[in-house]
Amino acid sequence: MKKKRLKAIFFDVDDTLYSSSEFSAMARLNSVKAMISNGLRVELKECLLILKEIMKENKSNNKFLFDDLLKKVGKKYYSSVNKHVLIAAAVVAYHNTKNSFLKPYPDVKEVLKLLSETMPLVLGVLSSGFAVKQAEKIYRCGLHRYLSPNAIFFSETIGKDKPNLDFFRLPCAKLNLLPQETIYVGDRPKIDIEPAKAIGMVAILNQRSGKYLGQRSNVKPDFIIHDFWELLEILNRHFEILPLSEAT
Amino acid sequence: MKKKRLKAIFFDVDDTLYSSSEFSAMARLNSVKAMISNGLRVELKECLLILKEIMKENKSNNKFLFDDLLKKVGKKYYSSVNKHVLIAAAVVAYHNTKNSFLKPYPDVKEVLKLLSETMPLVLGVLSSGFAVKQAEKIYRCGLHRYLSPNAIFFSETIGKDKPNLDFFRLPCAKLNLLPQETIYVGDRPKIDIEPAKAIGMVAILNQRSGKYLGQRSNVKPDFIIHDFWELLEILNRHFEILPLSEAT
Repeated sequence: MKKKRLKAIFFDVDDTLYSSSEFSAMARLNSVKAMISNGLRVELKECLLILKEIMKENKSNNKFLFDDLLKKVGKKYYSSVNKHVLIAAAVVAYHNTKNSFLKPYPDVKEVLKLLSETMPLVLGVLSSGFAVKQAEKIYRCGLHRYLSPNAIFFSETIGKDKPNLDFFRLPCAKLNLLPQETIYVGDRPKIDIEPAKAIGMVAILNQRSGKYLGQRSNVKPDFIIHDFWELLEILNRHFEILPLSEAT
Repeated sequence: MKKKRLKAIFFDVDDTLYSSSEFSAMARLNSVKAMISNGLRVELKECLLILKEIMKENKSNNKFLFDDLLKKVGKKYYSSVNKHVLIAAAVVAYHNTKNSFLKPYPDVKEVLKLLSETMPLVLGVLSSGFAVKQAEKIYRCGLHRYLSPNAIFFSETIGKDKPNLDFFRLPCAKLNLLPQETIYVGDRPKIDIEPAKAIGMVAILNQRSGKYLGQRSNVKPDFIIHDFWELLEILNRHFEILPLSEAT
């Protein structure tokens, strides 16, 4: 079988390069612990259940998560402490968790390092979210050094978001790449795999962590991986890697 | 001379409880260092001068400070690195500076501890700014434990800001205090001292750090202090301290 020509790989960020869901759970745990040790008189378990409930109700905005938690439990459970100080304690604990727990999957770091040193591939990021917030995750993970600086794209700056096909098309165009010469690696069948395949990218489902782990879709990914060593094997077996300069 | 009756002291936060100006300078320094070590090819000194210029032009909004810095220096000075990663490096360094440099003046901590243990005074905060952001400073300074939880007020939640007289009036009313029974300690003659005196509070000018150190005003503060040991001496010499419960 003739190998497919490949020039670039774009990675999703959350639950692809690092376990966003594990990090968030740990950050919430530390935040709630800080609130309790600063005077919130509610059991840890109870608090985490309430947070889960809030997040289910209000998927899009976590900015007021701890505020909402206090609203739900009621003033009498934190009567001896100032509400804003309590929220500040949670926020500080949340941010400090970034320093200790925002790390890439170990194999992600090893494989990206190896790829960047041995193959002429463009390694990029193509992710939903605010540019600096998403870039902070890449930076904290230490992965920026393996990526091509001009191949890092976020919905905020593209002006389109998943699953809009232009979200995938525009970065390819900007780098003078045909979608067929690129791979997209993401964890969400419906908004990563379906649109990436629709424009002709090779779509790889990263099946490892996060709430979309069991999501079904009618569109099959080209490959499924559970760690980045499997990605490396797929590259070696199925693709002919070409440097970008040969594209034009 | 008959001593004045006193029931509460309200403190400003920035450049009163901690050196906001020193902290910010240190945070900016660390941020710029992080940008340079991540690929920004501009001298440290030059970067700091540009930041100063940006802050002078655009006093109110520091949210895009590093973004604006990159705009001013121009793309060719960071061509080898992604812009958002560079800003993220600055943001991470800025936040990490909080852990090491956001500390109260040592005498502030000692005197507030002493006051909270020995006097029936209500110790509160009355500050401009967003509630959680200002509360974070108090919390990081570890001063929340010496303050009365219901005497912590921020312009965001009061609904009025300095120098509006209601900013000073409403917290007094909420605690059932006459302004004459309270002290306000702040660093800005025009928006701390003038309005506080106007409603009858005892106004103490904290003359120690920050850009308003040399500001003149026609209204004289009741006292000037350079550290909180001087505040303690003023309390002992000029005031009869009464518990709040005797107010009503």
